Amino acid sequence: MQIEEYIPNLSLDCVVFGYSERSLKVLISRNKFGKKNWELLGGYIRKTESVEKAAARVLQERTGLKKVYLEQFRVFGNENRIIGSRNKNVLKEALRKYDPRRFNKEVVDWMTDRFVCIGFYALLDINRVVLKNGEFDEYLEWRSIDAVPEMIYDHNEILETGLASLREHLDSKLIAFNLLPETFTMRDLQALYEAVYERPFAMNNFQKKMLSLGVLERLEKKYTGAQNKAPYLYRFKGR
Amino acid sequence: MQIEEYIPNLSLDCVVFGYSERSLKVLISRNKFGKKNWELLGGYIRKTESVEKAAARVLQERTGLKKVYLEQFRVFGNENRIIGSRNKNVLKEALRKYDPRRFNKEVVDWMTDRFVCIGFYALLDINRVVLKNGEFDEYLEWRSIDAVPEMIYDHNEILETGLASLREHLDSKLIAFNLLPETFTMRDLQALYEAVYERPFAMNNFQKKMLSLGVLERLEKKYTGAQNKAPYLYRFKGR
Repeated sequence: MQIEEYIPNLSLDCVVFGYSERSLKVLISRNKFGKKNWELLGGYIRKTESVEKAAARVLQERTGLKKVYLEQFRVFGNENRIIGSRNKNVLKEALRKYDPRRFNKEVVDWMTDRFVCIGFYALLDINRVVLKNGEFDEYLEWRSIDAVPEMIYDHNEILETGLASLREHLDSKLIAFNLLPETFTMRDLQALYEAVYERPFAMNNFQKKMLSLGVLERLEKKYTGAQNKAPYLYRFKGR
Repeated sequence: MQIEEYIPNLSLDCVVFGYSERSLKVLISRNKFGKKNWELLGGYIRKTESVEKAAARVLQERTGLKKVYLEQFRVFGNENRIIGSRNKNVLKEALRKYDPRRFNKEVVDWMTDRFVCIGFYALLDINRVVLKNGEFDEYLEWRSIDAVPEMIYDHNEILETGLASLREHLDSKLIAFNLLPETFTMRDLQALYEAVYERPFAMNNFQKKMLSLGVLERLEKKYTGAQNKAPYLYRFKGR
């Protein structure tokens, strides 16, 4: 990593959401350093790329996916972020041991200085992901949102804030379809909402509310001759 | 300005909204430089202060107000912001002429490098504001949102995005009360919504919707003895 290629003091972290087996999951990294060594997927911003392209690059490097739904949700700009953290010295030590020639004092000081962090959340299809470790990842892992370990710095707060933002936007930005196959039943959609909000929804009210949004297209049932008990399939109009 | 006190390549701009005479207004600066010399109120972030404190400081310097409702709404992080702009060279020239000793090559290069900009919007009570020019302001002015001139860089886009965010959050974050006196009539509230959204609302529907939010408290009318035709007064419960 050539620090002069990157904007100093500015980083990004991605809260990467995926959905499988009726559970909302988040992708986290177990890094090679320290004890509490879980973290979100983050990176720096090249001087020659936009903030959005930097987030897409960070995700593509770890998931292989080129087109991912990405949304900024907040800047974490406390003056004590990282420089006031115990994790900082652990990281300094670890980087020097890892490769003392590349991670000399100048580089390590740059990496453990104050960073203002831009938070993004991403929604992606777990089945299409091919995980690939970044240089500092021991391994990457999908965790259910109710089973996320303690992470470094303020990463748990970043995750919680990203989850709150996802919930806030699930209706209005019509982003649920990024987590569903092209066609789905009303029960599938309800299961997704229940996973995201971590609470049950009443079936009748849920169906009424979803239909009132005006974004679902109901597909014709194929007439099979027999009494047709299969549920209706829907798809998003904008898809 | 001592550039070493600030985080490089990171700035903030505030879309400062006020409300008076049934019109939504935004506070802009006519700066001392160049031709298209209107801009939003912006500044840099000290290495020792949080991003939020920096925004509050920038506002306090120009309005005298200490406690202002401030909300981050987006980061503007295009790789060509400022460094790809014609305004950049105008600013370079003007700064050198303005004070060649203070604005030497190093300082001017720092100020006209790429900047990632954090957008905030602010809501404040126009009547409490005492405007005070910053060093580069020729003067500050309140403009109705339908009469904002062309501004430098991407400041018109920042304004539009901030306005969209204000509209999106007007119900859910209950921020309207920052723009109203403590007690108000339903017509006052409707006039505010009409100013923010720049469109009329139907009276009956509007009242129904506002009451359904469950955040308004209706005050008792004083019994005057005469037939009481004065409209009800309301206030926000959370206030």
